[in-house]
Amino acid sequence: MIDLRSDTVTRPSAEMLAAMTSAPVGDDVYGEDPTVNALEEQVAGMLGHEAGLFTVTGSLANMLGVQALVPRGGEVLCEASAHIVRAELGSHAAVNGVTTRTWSAPAGQIDLDQIRALIAADLGPYFVRTSAVSVENTHNFGGGAIQHGYDALADELDAHDLPLHLDGARLWNASVASGVPVAAYASRAAAASVCLSKGLGAPVGSVLVGSTELIREARVWRKRLGGGWRQAGVLAAAGLYAVAHNVERLAEDHANARAIADVLADAAPGSVKPDQVETNIVVADLAATGRTVAEVVAAAKEAGALVGGVGATQLRVVTHLDASAEDCRAAAEVLARIVS
Amino acid sequence: MIDLRSDTVTRPSAEMLAAMTSAPVGDDVYGEDPTVNALEEQVAGMLGHEAGLFTVTGSLANMLGVQALVPRGGEVLCEASAHIVRAELGSHAAVNGVTTRTWSAPAGQIDLDQIRALIAADLGPYFVRTSAVSVENTHNFGGGAIQHGYDALADELDAHDLPLHLDGARLWNASVASGVPVAAYASRAAAASVCLSKGLGAPVGSVLVGSTELIREARVWRKRLGGGWRQAGVLAAAGLYAVAHNVERLAEDHANARAIADVLADAAPGSVKPDQVETNIVVADLAATGRTVAEVVAAAKEAGALVGGVGATQLRVVTHLDASAEDCRAAAEVLARIVS
Amino acid sequence: MIDLRSDTVTRPSAEMLAAMTSAPVGDDVYGEDPTVNALEEQVAGMLGHEAGLFTVTGSLANMLGVQALVPRGGEVLCEASAHIVRAELGSHAAVNGVTTRTWSAPAGQIDLDQIRALIAADLGPYFVRTSAVSVENTHNFGGGAIQHGYDALADELDAHDLPLHLDGARLWNASVASGVPVAAYASRAAAASVCLSKGLGAPVGSVLVGSTELIREARVWRKRLGGGWRQAGVLAAAGLYAVAHNVERLAEDHANARAIADVLADAAPGSVKPDQVETNIVVADLAATGRTVAEVVAAAKEAGALVGGVGATQLRVVTHLDASAEDCRAAAEVLARIVS
Amino acid sequence: MIDLRSDTVTRPSAEMLAAMTSAPVGDDVYGEDPTVNALEEQVAGMLGHEAGLFTVTGSLANMLGVQALVPRGGEVLCEASAHIVRAELGSHAAVNGVTTRTWSAPAGQIDLDQIRALIAADLGPYFVRTSAVSVENTHNFGGGAIQHGYDALADELDAHDLPLHLDGARLWNASVASGVPVAAYASRAAAASVCLSKGLGAPVGSVLVGSTELIREARVWRKRLGGGWRQAGVLAAAGLYAVAHNVERLAEDHANARAIADVLADAAPGSVKPDQVETNIVVADLAATGRTVAEVVAAAKEAGALVGGVGATQLRVVTHLDASAEDCRAAAEVLARIVS
Repeated sequence: MIDLRSDTVTRPSAEMLAAMTSAPVGDDVYGEDPTVNALEEQVAGMLGHEAGLFTVTGSLANMLGVQALVPRGGEVLCEASAHIVRAELGSHAAVNGVTTRTWSAPAGQIDLDQIRALIAADLGPYFVRTSAVSVENTHNFGGGAIQHGYDALADELDAHDLPLHLDGARLWNASVASGVPVAAYASRAAAASVCLSKGLGAPVGSVLVGSTELIREARVWRKRLGGGWRQAGVLAAAGLYAVAHNVERLAEDHANARAIADVLADAAPGSVKPDQVETNIVVADLAATGRTVAEVVAAAKEAGALVGGVGATQLRVVTHLDASAEDCRAAAEVLARIVS
Repeated sequence: MIDLRSDTVTRPSAEMLAAMTSAPVGDDVYGEDPTVNALEEQVAGMLGHEAGLFTVTGSLANMLGVQALVPRGGEVLCEASAHIVRAELGSHAAVNGVTTRTWSAPAGQIDLDQIRALIAADLGPYFVRTSAVSVENTHNFGGGAIQHGYDALADELDAHDLPLHLDGARLWNASVASGVPVAAYASRAAAASVCLSKGLGAPVGSVLVGSTELIREARVWRKRLGGGWRQAGVLAAAGLYAVAHNVERLAEDHANARAIADVLADAAPGSVKPDQVETNIVVADLAATGRTVAEVVAAAKEAGALVGGVGATQLRVVTHLDASAEDCRAAAEVLARIVS
Repeated sequence: MIDLRSDTVTRPSAEMLAAMTSAPVGDDVYGEDPTVNALEEQVAGMLGHEAGLFTVTGSLANMLGVQALVPRGGEVLCEASAHIVRAELGSHAAVNGVTTRTWSAPAGQIDLDQIRALIAADLGPYFVRTSAVSVENTHNFGGGAIQHGYDALADELDAHDLPLHLDGARLWNASVASGVPVAAYASRAAAASVCLSKGLGAPVGSVLVGSTELIREARVWRKRLGGGWRQAGVLAAAGLYAVAHNVERLAEDHANARAIADVLADAAPGSVKPDQVETNIVVADLAATGRTVAEVVAAAKEAGALVGGVGATQLRVVTHLDASAEDCRAAAEVLARIVS
Repeated sequence: MIDLRSDTVTRPSAEMLAAMTSAPVGDDVYGEDPTVNALEEQVAGMLGHEAGLFTVTGSLANMLGVQALVPRGGEVLCEASAHIVRAELGSHAAVNGVTTRTWSAPAGQIDLDQIRALIAADLGPYFVRTSAVSVENTHNFGGGAIQHGYDALADELDAHDLPLHLDGARLWNASVASGVPVAAYASRAAAASVCLSKGLGAPVGSVLVGSTELIREARVWRKRLGGGWRQAGVLAAAGLYAVAHNVERLAEDHANARAIADVLADAAPGSVKPDQVETNIVVADLAATGRTVAEVVAAAKEAGALVGGVGATQLRVVTHLDASAEDCRAAAEVLARIVS
């Protein structure tokens, strides 16, 4: 069975497991896990920030990051299909009382005109105040798209003295595909999260980065939210291994995704534009094929390929380090047979 | 001084005060204030609903109404300049954990295509689910615009089995201007609020309407939020008086607003389209005049007219029962002199 | 029917209504209601504080006061039958995320040893920190008891650099009965609330007092919680009248309560100790009478007297300005016949 | 350095690490990690419950368990030094809006009379309702004490139709010391948590158990709170190993703790009663020694032993599987020298 539902399904390799079992560990609640500390320092450095916090999920890293920038009753703006408003179960509102307004754009892109219109001037104490703008880069439900206009947005926000939040769950993919260093992206944000358990292949974990002060407070809130783990060095070791070995190879995932898109574009013309598949996610619109996502998912499963959907007609295929070029080609052919 | 900052600035008339002092009252926490009960029954009936709840503000009525339809972590959709996301201090997120996504449209209108794109299909337990759509009618920051396409939206939501929330703070204005009975609007919503202290001239209060069960739960939450008042019949009497005497006369406010818009359109061409001034609010864009809102507001004050703004270049003028046709004409001339 | 269920059931007198209709009003959201401003200034002055905020209920005043002293995730300590943990629907936790620990004492009294044991030293960032102690004076479910040891507690808290919150819903009663000025109580607290609609006879409203800064923030949160009313001067006028005319006469209510207690103590020996009835509330324990509260309440109602309960066997009788000495005597006799 | 600050400081053994690296894993968000599933089933079975949920911390398991039993604005009762109100940063209030009242008892024991007095009868919709009682067994800040009267409390709660919540972070210790099977404790509770990373020596993780329905909802909330991890089987394998190999040996920790207590009782008479040291925690009161906890902790560190405190004069020493009998004896002698 070839599993292309998500890049979260990867399993740790033998080398990664070896790194995990040989790492020194300690009680991270006391700040004494040397491997956790090394990971936090390493990732913060790579992203151009003072400090890092190892979290059990990207959702938690985002929750803590947004909360650090937006007070209760304040507002963060984001694109309408961003992970933070679609796939985190409303936690920013439900847990932290952060309110949201959204713009909509193809491939989840930044739309500076819309954002300017949304940014609320300070109209006095009785109006909601925009406290931050959040960008997801690459954009998951936008088909793994790199966020274009990222620097222009950062400049605009500087002019408004507004912080940028970066949901960088797949920032590694954006960087490898664009050639822009991760630090060039992340250092524009006041808080940024990156994920270790997606394309990088670690079993569990994300890292939030920001200033020393921001991370100190996030650490307390991580504990309050039940995320203050103990000998997490076992997992941090996997993260360190992933960061050292699995970043550059994301280019293979991107090539595999493009190849899948090529096959799908042939089989179902108009369903996907291969040259817009910039990273490791292919979102194909099945509307014109007369097949529903549910049907295609079921048929593909029967034929040995697992894929997913992000709506009634939107098929999602994700490449990763546990799926070889051959696996991806085979899966693409399965899908082509079904949709054509 | 002619005060056109808002229709909330009205003062109770002698007749209204007389009604207030002669009304029988009791302890409303025990459900024993006969005048409160009469008001709740009266307004619920007018709006085509089973039950009503008298609340200290429209913000509270909206908070209780949205909460009744949307669970913590669930989502309500609304236009990006709606009162519930702009002028209620993030309470829906901060107090009730309700998350929001927004569409943007001229004059705060319903945009069915955008709404369809936002409505989240049920993608499983880990995705945010759209639980309701909220519409503000008339739309305050949209210049008092009547919501066109209201019935089509209600039909669409029926098809999705999604409830509609109606922020009807100025529903009376919409009804008088459009000729559509308030019940025809409100009965399409699962929960609706109307305000008594704006155009209707009561000093304090709004009414939330819905099913008996919805109102029962809202009553408990009103108490939890510190809004369970005692001998509120004094205020409910003003509301009953307002509903009986001050609805039809809103047509005068609308005519006055149109007249102001005519004067402004002459003085600052392009700043406002008078035929889009449907009710009692004029929003004029001063961008082309070279004057800021702050300047115009200050100059108008010096000349005896109070007006407000809803952004750096958006002037807002609101007519109401304490401003006669002559007052409005005088204020319009003051503004014309300043902006031309 | 003589209604002794609560001192919240009073109705405004003709003189109070006259004050209400002649008061100048304005839009309090803009800070422009002169009567509201006068009330806030007057009460703040009486209580020895810089500023005041007129709120629709005592629950709201308490919510805002506690929140001003205790951050989300922080702790306030109070007696286990205090109004804030028993009769405010968990709002301090549900709305503001304030956590509570409680001590238990006869008549809801301050117990300094227990409080000392509860006050949490700062054990580091991962422990709950005590941020305030709240005292209710007089104590409603404690039978209207004056809080003895109030100054000693205030001194103790000073030593810990911890603020005191005062729920002074019936502080007027405590003051009249003890001879201690309200300012002597309230000025020891960083935030204090007093109610106008209980013994003082106003229809609606409480006042929160504190520093200018505390009140400024509470004003924003009052709006967020839906409590930012408009021409509230109508009600503030009642409050000003009440403060001017109805404080000293609380002594009559206290005498009436003592007289009722005398009658009950005769009829059901041991049910109540008259010399512990310090103010206007009589709590009588019916356990030994073989009658339940529900039975007694029902029988009394049939005989023309309304009373209440605060538990299965605890009858509660409350005197107030709408119940004369004769009314109270008559009600006491009704109760005596039932329980003896 | 002998580390007796907490039983959370243990490091995974070679055998445990081997189990971790050989376990099959999958994406637990999709419910596809076979090792996580095995752990959840295994622990649920041991505790007499239908279903289990593997969580990153005991705090998260408690948050989800209490939330499942107590609605927002509802109340849970617990002892005043229980972990849920002292060491979870107010999360039950801050995140879930759960309010608390507390009783106080020596060694954190159940006090049925106090609990009966606190249990709030249903006094109508405007009063806080007690929704659950929580018991911590063994009781951490109570010196590892087994909760006596546990069954009597469970019976009492059955009579009130109230659920019991069990914080069983160290339930394994209670069971080994008392001879009562863990299921006999846990099956009396509607929701129970047990920890794998304290005495049992796993690096990370706890398990919440309850009905299938309760766990289904807790799983969604775990995701909302950012605790929905991916290939957590690596850690679950450690948990399975711990449950299989490290339960019975807790008896050694208990003997070591008793031995430490004996030494301390000799060195500082009255500081601790050895026969009350039932499990693996020694809390010694240094008040009579003239030494503060801070001094003793610092001096012990210098001499090679790490210990902690739970208050100004309360020293806490915790035994665990990484501290041998000899280690414990050596540490006890260090402490004895300092305090005598």
